[in-house]
Amino acid sequence: MTIPRHVVKRHIHFGDCDPAQIVYYPRFFEMFDRAVEDMLHAQGIDWQWMHDNIEGFLSMPILEVKANFRVRVAFGDEIEIHTWIGEVREKVFRVEHEIRRDGETTATAHQLRAIVLRDESAEQGARAAPLPAYILEKLPR
Amino acid sequence: MTIPRHVVKRHIHFGDCDPAQIVYYPRFFEMFDRAVEDMLHAQGIDWQWMHDNIEGFLSMPILEVKANFRVRVAFGDEIEIHTWIGEVREKVFRVEHEIRRDGETTATAHQLRAIVLRDESAEQGARAAPLPAYILEKLPR
Amino acid sequence: MTIPRHVVKRHIHFGDCDPAQIVYYPRFFEMFDRAVEDMLHAQGIDWQWMHDNIEGFLSMPILEVKANFRVRVAFGDEIEIHTWIGEVREKVFRVEHEIRRDGETTATAHQLRAIVLRDESAEQGARAAPLPAYILEKLPR
Amino acid sequence: MTIPRHVVKRHIHFGDCDPAQIVYYPRFFEMFDRAVEDMLHAQGIDWQWMHDNIEGFLSMPILEVKANFRVRVAFGDEIEIHTWIGEVREKVFRVEHEIRRDGETTATAHQLRAIVLRDESAEQGARAAPLPAYILEKLPR
Repeated sequence: MTIPRHVVKRHIHFGDCDPAQIVYYPRFFEMFDRAVEDMLHAQGIDWQWMHDNIEGFLSMPILEVKANFRVRVAFGDEIEIHTWIGEVREKVFRVEHEIRRDGETTATAHQLRAIVLRDESAEQGARAAPLPAYILEKLPR
Repeated sequence: MTIPRHVVKRHIHFGDCDPAQIVYYPRFFEMFDRAVEDMLHAQGIDWQWMHDNIEGFLSMPILEVKANFRVRVAFGDEIEIHTWIGEVREKVFRVEHEIRRDGETTATAHQLRAIVLRDESAEQGARAAPLPAYILEKLPR
Repeated sequence: MTIPRHVVKRHIHFGDCDPAQIVYYPRFFEMFDRAVEDMLHAQGIDWQWMHDNIEGFLSMPILEVKANFRVRVAFGDEIEIHTWIGEVREKVFRVEHEIRRDGETTATAHQLRAIVLRDESAEQGARAAPLPAYILEKLPR
Repeated sequence: MTIPRHVVKRHIHFGDCDPAQIVYYPRFFEMFDRAVEDMLHAQGIDWQWMHDNIEGFLSMPILEVKANFRVRVAFGDEIEIHTWIGEVREKVFRVEHEIRRDGETTATAHQLRAIVLRDESAEQGARAAPLPAYILEKLPR
């Protein structure tokens, strides 16, 4: 079974844009962050759920984020934010993003995240852990 | 003794502004919020300090905020954000703000805040309390 | 005919919230600003439309904004943002907002806006004008 | 002559942080954007200056941005944002960022930007151009 990409439609508002009348780029990272939250939420996974269901869950920190902007996105545009899980390494997973407007890719991005668990025996009281399989199987790849 | 107004100088950045090339007004509320934090911080009062020094301290919620914008503030402008304590009522205090540019007042604003303490005997487990006198005497009025 | 209130549903995201786990209040003003834009947009009225259809249209500045916060809104909450046109004075109109969660009003707010037209004969080259009747009749009151 | 790195000191405010009490990462990109503007501004270079001094200047778009977060930065921390020009390629230049706290690097980042000029003979009416040498020599590398 293939789970389809998580897609959010978004109208670009006045307040998303800067004096050049295009999206002020830090706003894209807010959109990406919300998209990850929405993708998880659509599967019944939220912060509280992770605390309750992943033993010792502390946080899901972001380790790296990168975006490539190909085309300007302007005030009034209608975009789609596509989000899915890319590579899953032992202790880090990659979330992929693509911004589309009228079928054209205007930007691509990814973020690396980890799941961090409480572990008193670890050096700093915490350690990275794999993304649980029962979460992974619910998410688009 | 009169404590002078707390004043922060601020360059209006590209990212503060909207497609009309003026400050996107929610950014002013971020500036006001920072100004209150800075005003307290300048007196050695921060969140941790309040937790440690105000018995039962829970939070300092905002109850009301109002701003009047008289003149446009644009990309590249240099402004001053003036902040001081206005009226102090029994359980609510008022913080006043004024935005100035080249000596002209471009906006005025105020916020009402309360100090909320843990109180198991209160209906919701918490109650509003007066702004402690030892904080008040350190702040500009 | 009564036009129903404009209502936007909104999930409170992680990034909307502050260390107290509640909405960082300047975010509410971003929500209000978007709500006004969406309310107009739902009637086919956007910035470009106003430039094309209101002779001499320059801008729709915000003159005053006020919000009263009654109840905390926290990370994960589902809210509704209700927006409608309140009082219409000669040169200023009032937009009303109400935040609801599970039928309870958590905050109320209003903003005063004006329509500003280019007018070479006016002192500063511009003057405030009434909200056009053909716009007003399309909006909820 | 070596021009020293551009350094901005920054107190991490309440409103910079998320419910995990650390900086909400899109805020770092706002800080980076401001740092670039401040670095240029410190040399007398602003948007208006570029329009007036770079013939045909249209914009300075961001093509790529990447950040690596090594260590949490929390509410109340005092950080330094270091900014300088890295690699300069023919039509693209790289701006480097480093976040430091107490001498420790908490994050590194870079952005690729271009200078875009109006050019009627070009395919889309515009073309990328090298960063002018008289700007480059004023900036830290």
